[in-house]
Amino acid sequence: MTFPVVGMVGGGQLARMTHEAGIPLGLTFKLLSDTPQDSAAQVVNEVVIGDYRDLDTLRAFARGCDVITFDHEHVPTEHLRALEADGIPVRPGPDALVHAQDKGVMRARLTEIGAPCPRHRIVSGPADAAAFAEEVGGFPVILKTVRGGYDGKGVWVVRSEEDAADPFRAGVPVLAEEKVDFVRELAANIVRSPHGQAVAYPVVESIQVDGVCDTVIAPAPGLDEELAGEAQQLALRIAAELGVVGHLAVELFETRGPDGKPGILVNELAMRPHNSGHWTMDGAITSQFANHVRAVLDLPLGDPRPRAPWTVMCNVLGGDYPDMYQGYLHCMARDPQLKIHMYGKDVKPGRKVGHVNTYGDDLADVRERARHAADYLRGTITE
Amino acid sequence: MTFPVVGMVGGGQLARMTHEAGIPLGLTFKLLSDTPQDSAAQVVNEVVIGDYRDLDTLRAFARGCDVITFDHEHVPTEHLRALEADGIPVRPGPDALVHAQDKGVMRARLTEIGAPCPRHRIVSGPADAAAFAEEVGGFPVILKTVRGGYDGKGVWVVRSEEDAADPFRAGVPVLAEEKVDFVRELAANIVRSPHGQAVAYPVVESIQVDGVCDTVIAPAPGLDEELAGEAQQLALRIAAELGVVGHLAVELFETRGPDGKPGILVNELAMRPHNSGHWTMDGAITSQFANHVRAVLDLPLGDPRPRAPWTVMCNVLGGDYPDMYQGYLHCMARDPQLKIHMYGKDVKPGRKVGHVNTYGDDLADVRERARHAADYLRGTITE
Repeated sequence: MTFPVVGMVGGGQLARMTHEAGIPLGLTFKLLSDTPQDSAAQVVNEVVIGDYRDLDTLRAFARGCDVITFDHEHVPTEHLRALEADGIPVRPGPDALVHAQDKGVMRARLTEIGAPCPRHRIVSGPADAAAFAEEVGGFPVILKTVRGGYDGKGVWVVRSEEDAADPFRAGVPVLAEEKVDFVRELAANIVRSPHGQAVAYPVVESIQVDGVCDTVIAPAPGLDEELAGEAQQLALRIAAELGVVGHLAVELFETRGPDGKPGILVNELAMRPHNSGHWTMDGAITSQFANHVRAVLDLPLGDPRPRAPWTVMCNVLGGDYPDMYQGYLHCMARDPQLKIHMYGKDVKPGRKVGHVNTYGDDLADVRERARHAADYLRGTITE
Repeated sequence: MTFPVVGMVGGGQLARMTHEAGIPLGLTFKLLSDTPQDSAAQVVNEVVIGDYRDLDTLRAFARGCDVITFDHEHVPTEHLRALEADGIPVRPGPDALVHAQDKGVMRARLTEIGAPCPRHRIVSGPADAAAFAEEVGGFPVILKTVRGGYDGKGVWVVRSEEDAADPFRAGVPVLAEEKVDFVRELAANIVRSPHGQAVAYPVVESIQVDGVCDTVIAPAPGLDEELAGEAQQLALRIAAELGVVGHLAVELFETRGPDGKPGILVNELAMRPHNSGHWTMDGAITSQFANHVRAVLDLPLGDPRPRAPWTVMCNVLGGDYPDMYQGYLHCMARDPQLKIHMYGKDVKPGRKVGHVNTYGDDLADVRERARHAADYLRGTITE
């Protein structure tokens, strides 16, 4: 059989779940992982241990792969170009991926194509940040290093000029953004293939706690239908304009205008399976992971529609107890419909070590079940 | 974390799909496989290549496993007892498994517990087979070697005494059974854990072609509700009486009495995930594979209820063309809701190389979609 070989760079949980989704597709899955203990490295047959920052390692890994895709966005752009020059399809490609790697490039390009963004500009230091604050109506403003941040890292809410020194210490350009007075956060997730086929998942509500995704509700409750359509179209348009291949998560702020009219602003882009799409594993006809793999191989995409009226995902974060097994037993016994997804990672406080999905007809019930399981696994409740 | 290590003996597609189901559970999965090319060996990280018939190999493999379970039923009983004596939980255990390994033992025990069976007895040779035929109303009768058969192999429909020589050539005891005039074949699938928790899947209709499972419809269309309940209770009782742990498939004949009353007779038992349960991967809240793993680890079991009114599974058999990839593209494009499960096996005519699942509200549509995909992948239709 001529079933293709997918090379995945990065051994985190996204790679782990992509492998899980690739097994029924009959693909060969090769993994480049930092260590044999990484989440995906525990469950994949063909694992190469190596450093993705080293071009020779990447090149050797890519040999024999029909496509290279990613668990994270940290592979240097010049390495991706070198792989492409070697004739290896890289998906998403470097020209698209740079928009998920560099927030400055992302904001410039989104502005160019007319995607609604918070007001923003690159600032040169604390004084310039203060000048930007003045332009947008005063502190607080958001400062972000243009590269290297995730899960709230690399992002500062700055309340004064003195406060604004930290972000500049890394020597990375700093992007200033107005602090948006949003109603809630949404995510519009789509998948696009090289031949331009695309599918849009329902727009979800994403609830963050301390800058980390905590709960995702699919679809976003009470979301204006027209706005939901706009958000999906915006995500599809961004994908097409930027040449994204694979899964694209567009994280959005939902806003209210002075007239009470709802609107959206783009917060972040991620070009890989995304935490706001984990609900699809149990809640959609085709999961984000299956569709990501299908897209990077230019296979026809699967139906993205939901299988239940409501699906809720809660992240399981590490708590004070290193052993989750007792909690896991309890949660399975309490809720036989609960879908637990563990990542095989050691428990550290605040670390994402798994997620749970619940689905059903009654949102309050579905939400309570997911919440309870996540809290119980973390150890913040004991009954 | 103290998440357990599951040791799976046998590298076939059942092991492959059990691994897939085990990934979200956060388990460590170890595989004992005949070759590195076996279906499961392609996708599992910890693979030991070795012969399950060699006790030393089994013992070395079992070291460090929290439980041993099986892709097939061919491990010698005395080896299983040796592992148990070493303190390794073997699930299902040898005393249960022998009933799935030896059809003579199975029939004797089922008769003892009052489970409805076709008339049967061990026969000593062609003349004795002819005598049995006379006892049950004449030829044809079914002859089966008590060990080693599967997918129609080791089973003969015998029409005369002369016809009856073949089954005895292997030197294995031969079981004679009346040829049941059945309406259709059903399967009652249940999962049972060591502490006695059990779940029953809906009873399905199983359609065989040339002795090989072709189509499974869940639930069995038009099945008398009372009979469905009886079949589930029978399967649960067999599991309890025989001490089965894990998935038990009870293959049944549906019969009609002279009064038109429907009835059931037990055809075969399988103590592992089973082809008649593949529909659960996309059609049930918890798949047979997830529940099998949960059972052998004595974890609380998951909800076995269906997620859609109808789910249909069709096996994908190898045809004349060794490359299924073009067909696979076509099927994905034609039906974005189709769930394809490929096993990574080389195509050989008649070999099970995958299956497809479809689900929905309209049985005719669901069935046509699965049938079309399976036929197209095999190459027996081209549009």
